[in-house]
Amino acid sequence: MTVQQHIINLATSAKAACPTIANSPVSQRNEALTKIAEALETSRAALLKANELDLESAADAGLDAALVDRLELNDARIDGMLDALSIVRSLPDPIGGIEDLKSMTSGIQVGKMRVPLGLIGIIYESRPNVTIDAASLCLKSGNAVMLRGGSEAIRSNLVLSDCIKSGLKAAGLPEAAVQVVDTTDRSAVSALVSLEGLVDMVVPRGGKGLIERVAREAKVPVLKHLDGVCHLYIHAQADPEMAIALALNAKTHRYGTCNTMETLLVDEKMIDTLEAIAQPLLAKGVELRGCEATHKVLAERCSRASAHDWDEEYLAPILAVKVVSGVEEAISHIARHGSGHTDGIVTSCHQSAMRFLRAVDSSSVMVNASTRFADGFEYGLGAEIGISTDKIHARGPVGLEGLTSQKYIVLGDGHIRA
Amino acid sequence: MTVQQHIINLATSAKAACPTIANSPVSQRNEALTKIAEALETSRAALLKANELDLESAADAGLDAALVDRLELNDARIDGMLDALSIVRSLPDPIGGIEDLKSMTSGIQVGKMRVPLGLIGIIYESRPNVTIDAASLCLKSGNAVMLRGGSEAIRSNLVLSDCIKSGLKAAGLPEAAVQVVDTTDRSAVSALVSLEGLVDMVVPRGGKGLIERVAREAKVPVLKHLDGVCHLYIHAQADPEMAIALALNAKTHRYGTCNTMETLLVDEKMIDTLEAIAQPLLAKGVELRGCEATHKVLAERCSRASAHDWDEEYLAPILAVKVVSGVEEAISHIARHGSGHTDGIVTSCHQSAMRFLRAVDSSSVMVNASTRFADGFEYGLGAEIGISTDKIHARGPVGLEGLTSQKYIVLGDGHIRA
Repeated sequence: MTVQQHIINLATSAKAACPTIANSPVSQRNEALTKIAEALETSRAALLKANELDLESAADAGLDAALVDRLELNDARIDGMLDALSIVRSLPDPIGGIEDLKSMTSGIQVGKMRVPLGLIGIIYESRPNVTIDAASLCLKSGNAVMLRGGSEAIRSNLVLSDCIKSGLKAAGLPEAAVQVVDTTDRSAVSALVSLEGLVDMVVPRGGKGLIERVAREAKVPVLKHLDGVCHLYIHAQADPEMAIALALNAKTHRYGTCNTMETLLVDEKMIDTLEAIAQPLLAKGVELRGCEATHKVLAERCSRASAHDWDEEYLAPILAVKVVSGVEEAISHIARHGSGHTDGIVTSCHQSAMRFLRAVDSSSVMVNASTRFADGFEYGLGAEIGISTDKIHARGPVGLEGLTSQKYIVLGDGHIRA
Repeated sequence: MTVQQHIINLATSAKAACPTIANSPVSQRNEALTKIAEALETSRAALLKANELDLESAADAGLDAALVDRLELNDARIDGMLDALSIVRSLPDPIGGIEDLKSMTSGIQVGKMRVPLGLIGIIYESRPNVTIDAASLCLKSGNAVMLRGGSEAIRSNLVLSDCIKSGLKAAGLPEAAVQVVDTTDRSAVSALVSLEGLVDMVVPRGGKGLIERVAREAKVPVLKHLDGVCHLYIHAQADPEMAIALALNAKTHRYGTCNTMETLLVDEKMIDTLEAIAQPLLAKGVELRGCEATHKVLAERCSRASAHDWDEEYLAPILAVKVVSGVEEAISHIARHGSGHTDGIVTSCHQSAMRFLRAVDSSSVMVNASTRFADGFEYGLGAEIGISTDKIHARGPVGLEGLTSQKYIVLGDGHIRA
């Protein structure tokens, strides 16, 4: 059997499970999450053993350290998976509720019911915890799911697959509702994202290369973000202490995350504060790459930014710094160089805050807060399947709601159209 | 200049107008709609003259009668465009509002702001009124728009383009925000739907051939529906009089619309009512194509349905009729043969109504109402840009909201992530 045919078979059986999972009561979906957690607890030793083999293969293959770190499981990380299952179980049922039921002049009542999308595909790298996170979010929202993890994690993922299937079975739900793709063949990804009519949405999680490939090849809708070139703009009426603290947190809280600030925009009227903003960043070892005006202030403590620095997602202790003439230049700089992920303003001026909020076309726009808050947990979604910088369907951190759709429902009492 | 380069130029200038239209106050967008209506009133004679030339060319080219009917303008149809402008103007501003602002435990407030998508492409056939309808909906929702009408309506559409541009100018908004594509070259459609990064969404309106072509070629998101294979299921506990009236209205109110019933499902316990349901349909000249059980009752008044009748969108006085064993068979028949557009149940049983509402995966699901109600005006949207049977983004009749997106906004007071 070809890889493509194998993927079609897995997707077909997952799709066949959709009506059952979609129409199951939330108590049954929660029961499945409980049983998956129990199976995971029972399988701790087997999982750690499988992960050890994955790690050995990764070492043999010379995988880079960051990838190996993400691949590694230990008791704390397994506890994290159990926590995730517990959190998702505690969230309210995202489907089946009827909203906005209104009476029309014709006499009919029109409302919306939230329903699952159907079959979701998740494509990800190394972290085995995504297998549990994604499966639990999809199940809770009444979807079936195809999980395609990295080949480096295949042994760990297959143990997790067994836990998930046994949990589904114990709760009386079809095991086929969650399919961990059991082939490491690279063409499985291409096959999965081509299944129009079978797969309703694909969520790629991982490096930019993976996401670009999925977006390019996909024939089904893709929920994604490519870059996080996030900005913080220090407005003329910013509180200096707040500006210093926010710039430091947005850049140095974590360097490798997509909501980390990559470019600092400083209003020319705040030029006297630039020194004080730069100091703690430099003390943390952040390399500053400044425009000409920045360089005048910081001299040899900052290198000169080249044209391409304004478009760079460093994911590292490097920060581009640019002095701008005001809120309008900040907005247009972000429009030109930003990635539509997360951008913030620091200001005490209400009008400037509102102007920035409205005009910046990013998935998260912030006033007087660190860009690092752009996250499903911080936004109260309970959990996150990913972040979307697309404008269609779901935007920003995506939780259970982004895995659902709304259909119209009409209630009449024999109403006909006149 | 190639057609492709011409379309890129039009789109680039429309895209450049996006920030201005997106950030304009609703009073200015409404003023533009008023000024477009005034220009349309002033241009009545010129528009009718241009339309006459379009009709002459259509006659010379031997266009079919239905297409010519849709192409024709008269004073009543121009009044209809003026009404549409007035209705859209009267709708509340769909953008800029902040919803669901909630305080998180971290201290930040998180909410959502509704914002325009950016640049919309509309691809349609013959009806010149779509030019005004679509332009007004896109402008009201703060979007720029590329309008690609049929070549048969090009002269009419160019007069309407002048009206729109003069209205935008009079309101102080950029004329480039609405671009009526002025070439009849067929490759303009392919060019338009390929503009990733410039066009944010495309809405094709017209025959199935057009929509399939757009969906196949598009590299940008498409809001669409292909078929309307709509069902009405007469449940065992249906009120017979209601069943008769709803079946008649759903089939015969209009034959050519996408929300017209194409298959009637009759519960086997209602077999005695089949005669009474069929009678008024036959009296209206509807051809019935029945399953074996239907045929037993109606004999020579009904032809035998072939396998493909269950998948047919007749758009004509033809109705497929099938006797089913109960609500579960009705649901599975619809899942297999329906197009996800609109399906209804007639029943007095609450449990069956709720089961049907939840389990039928269509953009509109109805209880005791005619499928003909699936429409933006009937649903209180004020106006409709189209109907979507996709599950991603917008589903069912799409009004102003479907032309918008939501971004997260975060309000802090110097909050940093711990």
